[in-house]
Amino acid sequence: MANHTLEGNRLEAIPRQPVSHRALIGAVEGTLADFLACQIASLDTVDPALGGFARTTRDLVMAGGKRIRPTFAYWGWRGVVGSHEPVEGVLPALGALELMHTFALVHDDLMDRSATRRGRPTAHRLFAAQHGERFGDSAAILVGDLCLVWADQLLARTALPPTTLLDVRTRYDRMRVEAVAGQYLDVLGETDPAAWSVERALLVARHKTASYTVQWPLGFGLALAAGGHAALEEAYRIYGLAVGEAFQLRDDLLGVYGDPRITGKPAGDDLRTGKPTTLLMLARQLATDAQLDEFEAADITRQAEIIAATGAPAQVEEMIRSRVDAGVAAIAEAPVRTDARAALIELATAATHRPA
Amino acid sequence: MANHTLEGNRLEAIPRQPVSHRALIGAVEGTLADFLACQIASLDTVDPALGGFARTTRDLVMAGGKRIRPTFAYWGWRGVVGSHEPVEGVLPALGALELMHTFALVHDDLMDRSATRRGRPTAHRLFAAQHGERFGDSAAILVGDLCLVWADQLLARTALPPTTLLDVRTRYDRMRVEAVAGQYLDVLGETDPAAWSVERALLVARHKTASYTVQWPLGFGLALAAGGHAALEEAYRIYGLAVGEAFQLRDDLLGVYGDPRITGKPAGDDLRTGKPTTLLMLARQLATDAQLDEFEAADITRQAEIIAATGAPAQVEEMIRSRVDAGVAAIAEAPVRTDARAALIELATAATHRPA
Repeated sequence: MANHTLEGNRLEAIPRQPVSHRALIGAVEGTLADFLACQIASLDTVDPALGGFARTTRDLVMAGGKRIRPTFAYWGWRGVVGSHEPVEGVLPALGALELMHTFALVHDDLMDRSATRRGRPTAHRLFAAQHGERFGDSAAILVGDLCLVWADQLLARTALPPTTLLDVRTRYDRMRVEAVAGQYLDVLGETDPAAWSVERALLVARHKTASYTVQWPLGFGLALAAGGHAALEEAYRIYGLAVGEAFQLRDDLLGVYGDPRITGKPAGDDLRTGKPTTLLMLARQLATDAQLDEFEAADITRQAEIIAATGAPAQVEEMIRSRVDAGVAAIAEAPVRTDARAALIELATAATHRPA
Repeated sequence: MANHTLEGNRLEAIPRQPVSHRALIGAVEGTLADFLACQIASLDTVDPALGGFARTTRDLVMAGGKRIRPTFAYWGWRGVVGSHEPVEGVLPALGALELMHTFALVHDDLMDRSATRRGRPTAHRLFAAQHGERFGDSAAILVGDLCLVWADQLLARTALPPTTLLDVRTRYDRMRVEAVAGQYLDVLGETDPAAWSVERALLVARHKTASYTVQWPLGFGLALAAGGHAALEEAYRIYGLAVGEAFQLRDDLLGVYGDPRITGKPAGDDLRTGKPTTLLMLARQLATDAQLDEFEAADITRQAEIIAATGAPAQVEEMIRSRVDAGVAAIAEAPVRTDARAALIELATAATHRPA
């Protein structure tokens, strides 16, 4: 049983207790690499073209990224089990979150028609280079679909009792519905930005990002530990929504003012697509008539200046600050293990004051 | 426990043992309708736009179709448990297969840019009518994604012990990987039909259709019963591949010669997209030089006539016949319950000699 469920983990490379954030990420990526190597080998035997498809998908998964969801899930789990519980058994579940995230990124990039991600061509662009744009779009849909199914297969390798695993899956399913629903609202907002509002942008931030990036990964970790108190669950929920919203608000600022050499995305990407973010909706509320008029005809560089002049970025910084404070307060008082409390307090700031 | 897992089933409408194919389909559709009503209500409370999105998705799921995967899964299960086992507990699993199928159809139709399905506009066309083509494409991706997650949520409601459910999921995951891989080969084939072959078309038929439509649903049913013999598993495998390939070969014929009023798809859809089906690859092998030359410049009606003149449709009919015979022979000798044996022998012909 243990051998079967741990199949595909690079056990020798995994420390019993990751001594650092880097060690944790290394362990999760080792689990992913071994799992993906198995899947590639299996598809290669069916048809070499499928092996190639799987390899490109693997490269997208392994291309880096902050691995923030596995990190929150890890600390959500560690907050219950304490510092001596070996991590190996739950590594497949942590890796599954990252595969699910690749699914979301690949489909989102296709919908947004983004050209680059993590400084490399996006999936639909990679495949378009092989056989044209229509093939690129189709292959990107299938890359996302494959990652979503692979995530389930990796999750199934988690070394936990079946009933615990089914509880983990229940939360995982709700997380995925929220991510899809949030993305639908995001896409809908772009069809008619003039009808959008600060309130609705915050609703998208809550459903698309906060729940999916912080709140559910923490709850997922709690379920992996199969023994959290209701008070801890509630603290995770408050922290998750507050820090998750702050994370999205930072994303809004980076989408306009981020350095493309660091973010890996084109400069002013949100302005180009007209995404009605909280930052933009707030700027529209605060802008003078003259600023609104000038904004319409301005290029991206000038639009960024006008937004700054409205005072919206400073207000968004203040919104980030208050949310981080609320998240930290919730976790400071929660019945959570000491090392996890310290890590989550640090992450609240790190995740919301980042350059990319 | 029983109440929780059966939540969302319309118990009063379900006979203990479906007396007919129609009763089974009615029970599966009742389960789907109740589950979808719960999901719509839940998304409505977040934002009315999400409720609308969920309703459109529900209408696509409920728009009919042959429900062939739940049917094969039902008989795969019934072949082990016999005729007195109540069906209620496994209805969510049967419904999950149909939700997964809607995911596949919606994404496939987008990739093929098909305008109609089951006689109605496809998902991307429905949403394009609301906010333009790009929104339609994005929303269709999300409809598919949502159906795939909903399928997991419905599957989780199956009233089975956790270990059985995890075994069911293992097969379900492999089925989904094969469906995605088969679709990738299908899309790849369309980029360069000249480089395709009868052998490769049959490989696609095996992976995209046979495994996903017949073989895995039967195996899924076997896992739901948690007690099949190895000999039955092998018989299901042989039957599934043979009848499944025959099912796809019939699809090839319908894709050229089907009546759009019955198939619900435009006439000559495969000729329009240039899909390199077994039928087309065989016609190319058999065609004279004069036929090949004329084919290139001909319209769809004339192309169908040229294909008929090559003798390919008659050969495909023969391929269907030999596969149905092989499938029937495998199930005739298998250690399977009598009523399931009779039903599967009947289905082998019904599924491969259909008008739509």
